[in-house]
Amino acid sequence: MAYPRSLSDLINCFKKLPGIGEKSAERMALSLLDLSEEQVEMFSTAMLTSKNNLHTCPECGHITDKELCDICSDENRNHNVICILEDYKSVFAFEKAGNFNGVYHVLNGLISPIDDVNPEDINIASLISRVESLENPELIIALKSTIEGETTTLYLKKIFENKNVDISRLSYGIPMGTEIDYLDEITLDRALSDRKKISE
Amino acid sequence: MAYPRSLSDLINCFKKLPGIGEKSAERMALSLLDLSEEQVEMFSTAMLTSKNNLHTCPECGHITDKELCDICSDENRNHNVICILEDYKSVFAFEKAGNFNGVYHVLNGLISPIDDVNPEDINIASLISRVESLENPELIIALKSTIEGETTTLYLKKIFENKNVDISRLSYGIPMGTEIDYLDEITLDRALSDRKKISE
Repeated sequence: MAYPRSLSDLINCFKKLPGIGEKSAERMALSLLDLSEEQVEMFSTAMLTSKNNLHTCPECGHITDKELCDICSDENRNHNVICILEDYKSVFAFEKAGNFNGVYHVLNGLISPIDDVNPEDINIASLISRVESLENPELIIALKSTIEGETTTLYLKKIFENKNVDISRLSYGIPMGTEIDYLDEITLDRALSDRKKISE
Repeated sequence: MAYPRSLSDLINCFKKLPGIGEKSAERMALSLLDLSEEQVEMFSTAMLTSKNNLHTCPECGHITDKELCDICSDENRNHNVICILEDYKSVFAFEKAGNFNGVYHVLNGLISPIDDVNPEDINIASLISRVESLENPELIIALKSTIEGETTTLYLKKIFENKNVDISRLSYGIPMGTEIDYLDEITLDRALSDRKKISE
């Protein structure tokens, strides 16, 4: 079926977004036409502005439209505690949870020899110099539990272990609210071996 | 959690699309940032182009970026058979099914006294003059089976019934592939009363 050219172009653009197939892309493109001219213009501009204005914070690697990101420039946060993350999306996830008052360091990748991603390809050098400038640094490694995540975690541990840095990683275990019988064995094994004493 | 301003603007735009909640809008906006600058520019331009270039076909009311829509300007189609639809989205649905070789007439609404939508508010006048210009017109009414759809269907039938126009509407019944026991009673009643002899 032939959509008008400009419409099929738009549908193809929507299909580039994650989880959007043919059908959803069509529905979105068609409903975009139902928006007012001003709304479509705003949408179109917001896309360009986001893409062009957002850049990497030189301190932590998070995305920002300011010179320094909101988190790095916030003096109420504890700049001695650095949470190490794979990407900026994880920063948003942490900030949504809302209980962390330290700062972040975005690696922008994980060490993966198989994909030829080495320590110098991700933001580790900047992390080292950042940690060196602190007096009592604490590092919290919050990387996923894949081979790449584990490799990177171990690499970071090795770098910082003899440098008077307090270093930890997130706990693994049962996600909140999950049925035990639906859990995969590896998570269950991990939750078992990492079990904690029940405090009063 | 504070997203950078330009990003939260973009997220709000995505939320205007149907079926897109907070979470999906965030995911889409963030993944848009992963596209290349050219791709984002293309996307942004495609939005504006679609909105600005697409207009209503003066003949049938479908959307098009040409003077006359592809369907109305196609001489291989039977211009004596007009399928009457509520909106241009239905045209795309019919064209996808691909078995109809006539042309369309988009009413752009349905008669609904309760919402103060009267016959003169939808594209009925243009349909009448269109039908009058044909020699052996056949009308196929393909409107949904709501009160508004039925009202509009009856209204159209009344207008054309004494004018030597062959007029029909789509059959109601069981959707293909549906389990009988899941069907609502009204559809089932309808399918029963509209039952057809089994031909060889």
